[in-house]
Amino acid sequence: MDDDRDIILYLGDPICYNTELYAKLEKEFIILRPSKKERERDEFIKALKEKRWCEFSAILRPFCDSGWEMGKWNTALIHLLPDRCSAFASAGSGNEGIDLKVMKMQGIEYYNGAAAASEATGDMAIFHIIPVFRNMQWSIEGALSIDPNRWKDAHRNAARTAYNPSGKALGIIGLGQVGSTIARKAFGCFGMKIYYHDIKRKRKNEEEALKVEFCERLEGMLEIVDCVVVATPVLPTPIITKATLWRFKKGSRLVNIAHGSSVDEEALVGALETGHLSAAGLDVQEKEPYVHPKLAVMRNVTLTSHTAEGTIDTEIAFETLAMENIRQHFLAPSDFQSLCQKYPMRH
Amino acid sequence: MDDDRDIILYLGDPICYNTELYAKLEKEFIILRPSKKERERDEFIKALKEKRWCEFSAILRPFCDSGWEMGKWNTALIHLLPDRCSAFASAGSGNEGIDLKVMKMQGIEYYNGAAAASEATGDMAIFHIIPVFRNMQWSIEGALSIDPNRWKDAHRNAARTAYNPSGKALGIIGLGQVGSTIARKAFGCFGMKIYYHDIKRKRKNEEEALKVEFCERLEGMLEIVDCVVVATPVLPTPIITKATLWRFKKGSRLVNIAHGSSVDEEALVGALETGHLSAAGLDVQEKEPYVHPKLAVMRNVTLTSHTAEGTIDTEIAFETLAMENIRQHFLAPSDFQSLCQKYPMRH
Repeated sequence: MDDDRDIILYLGDPICYNTELYAKLEKEFIILRPSKKERERDEFIKALKEKRWCEFSAILRPFCDSGWEMGKWNTALIHLLPDRCSAFASAGSGNEGIDLKVMKMQGIEYYNGAAAASEATGDMAIFHIIPVFRNMQWSIEGALSIDPNRWKDAHRNAARTAYNPSGKALGIIGLGQVGSTIARKAFGCFGMKIYYHDIKRKRKNEEEALKVEFCERLEGMLEIVDCVVVATPVLPTPIITKATLWRFKKGSRLVNIAHGSSVDEEALVGALETGHLSAAGLDVQEKEPYVHPKLAVMRNVTLTSHTAEGTIDTEIAFETLAMENIRQHFLAPSDFQSLCQKYPMRH
Repeated sequence: MDDDRDIILYLGDPICYNTELYAKLEKEFIILRPSKKERERDEFIKALKEKRWCEFSAILRPFCDSGWEMGKWNTALIHLLPDRCSAFASAGSGNEGIDLKVMKMQGIEYYNGAAAASEATGDMAIFHIIPVFRNMQWSIEGALSIDPNRWKDAHRNAARTAYNPSGKALGIIGLGQVGSTIARKAFGCFGMKIYYHDIKRKRKNEEEALKVEFCERLEGMLEIVDCVVVATPVLPTPIITKATLWRFKKGSRLVNIAHGSSVDEEALVGALETGHLSAAGLDVQEKEPYVHPKLAVMRNVTLTSHTAEGTIDTEIAFETLAMENIRQHFLAPSDFQSLCQKYPMRH
C-alpha cells in the first residue's frame, strides 16, 4: 500500500459544524469511523483484537454525547491499542472515564477539550456568583409567581440582605482552564479580589496576569473569602464536607460548576439551614438527575441542570479543538500560534 | 444669630451606614429634619409657605424608600423653595418625580444617585444577558422541578439552542452611568462587541475607553446586534414597540433593566411567540407589581422583581453620595478627586 498517511480512529457522530477543517483532515489522514454497534464495549474490544482498524495512530472523539459507547478507558482497553497509537483527542473538559496513568505509560498523549468549554463554564460560574450575593432566586420567584404581593415582597425586601460582588473576595478551588476563565471574568465584571487554591501553583507571571493570589492551605482561603467556587477535576472524595464547610467564613457563599460529587450536599443543607453559609449556587448536584429536595425549596439556593458547558459554541469549539489537537500532534501546522491563542493547550 | 452655616433640609429616615460622614456634615451644616407627618404633601407645602425651616440652602434625601412623601416635585413645590436653595441631592438612579426644567430655572442643581446604583444595576444586566443567550430558565426549571426527567431534558437539550455571549454583539440603548457600567462589564466578562444609541454621543476618548461604537439611528443598531439592553431614563412613550421589535435582527434578544414602561409587553409577547425574538430578560415589567402571565410561563424569558438597584452596597453608596454631593457643592472638599473616582458625578 502506497498510502503512508496516519490512520485516525474516529469515535462518534459525524462532524457537523467545522466541515471545512474536517475536509482538510480527510486529506491529511486516513479516517476510519466505527459504526455505533462497533463502538459497544464487547464489539469494540473484539475489533481491537482483530486489528480491524489496522495500525491506527490516533483516536479522535469530537463530541461529548457520542463516541463513548465502549465505556471506561481502563487497562483492558488501552492495552489493546496499537503500538503506533500516540494521541487521543477528545471533547469534554475533564478526564473522566480515562485512566490517564495507563494512557501515559502506553505513550499516548491525551488531549481533553477543556479550553473549548471554559468560556461557557466560566459564564455559568458568573451566572451563579450574582445570585449568591444578590438573593436573585427570591427576586425570580416573586416575579414568576405573578402574585403582586410576592412580587412586592421580593422588590422591597430582597435588597435588604443583598450585596454587590464588586470588591468582595472570591476563592477559586482549582485554577485550571475553567478556574482561570472564572478568575478573568470575575475580575473583569466585578473587580473582585481573587484567591485560589490548587495542588499546583501557577507561575508568578501567570498569577499577575490573572490578578490572583495563591493560598497554599485550602482552609486558609476558606476563612477569608466571601464566596468559594469549586472548579476542580473529579476528585476521589468530596472537597466540600462538613469539616471544610465549618472553615468557611460565616455568611459566605458556595458555587459549584465542577462535579456534583465534590460537595457533600447533606452537609451543605445543614450549613445553609444554620445560616453559617448565606447562599449557594449549584450547576451540578450530588445525585444527578435527582436534586436534593431541600435545596430545591431554599430561596437562597440557585440551581441549574448541569448545563455549564452546554452551548453550540462549545460544541463547535470541541470538534475544532479535537481535530486541531490531532493535526498539531502529527503535523505541527504553521497556524499553531493562532490556534494556541484561540484554544490554549492544556500543557 | 451668629451661626452662618448653610441649612440642609433633610428628607427621610436617619443615616444608617455612613454615620461618620454624617457627623462631619452636622458640623459643617445645620441640618433640619422634618417629621414623617411634615413630609406629607399638604403639610409640607404649608411648612414651606410658613418658612418653617428658615432659608435652607439645600435638600438632602439619602434613601430611596423614604423622604418622598410630598410626592411630585413640580412647579407647585419648587416655587415655594427659598431663593437661597441651590442644591438637591437625592438617592435613586433616575430623575423620576422631579421637574428638572423648573428646577434648573429656579437655579437649583439636582444631583441624582445614579453613580451609586450603577454597579448593582450593571450586575443585573449581566445576570439577564447570560440566560437570554443560554436558555438558563430552562436549566433552572429542570433542576427546581426535582423531576429527574425534566432535569435530564434540560441537561441534554437546553444546550442545543444555547450560545456564548462571548464575541456576540450587544446594543445598549442609553449610555449614561448605568449603560456605561453595563458596557464595561459586558466587555470585561464576555468580550462582546458593543454598540450604543443615545440622544447624546459620548466624546471619542470616552468611546475608546469603553470600547463602544455609536449608532446614530436606533433602527440601524437593532438590525445588527444579538442582544439589546434598555438602559434609558423614563421616557414619555415606550421605546420597544411593535414597530421597533420588527427591526430587531431575527432570533435576537431583549434585556430591560431600566423601566417597565419602556417596553410594550404585548408586542414583546408577540415577538417571542413568533420566534422573531429568541429570548427576553426583564427586571422591570410594564404593570408592576403585576407580571404579564404569558411572560411568566415562557421558558425563554427570565424575570426578576425590579431589584436591579437593590443591594446594601447601593444603599450605603446612595447615602454617601448624597451627602458628598452636598459637601462638594458648598465646600468643594479637598477629597473631591477621590470621591470622583469612587462615584463619578453625573456631569
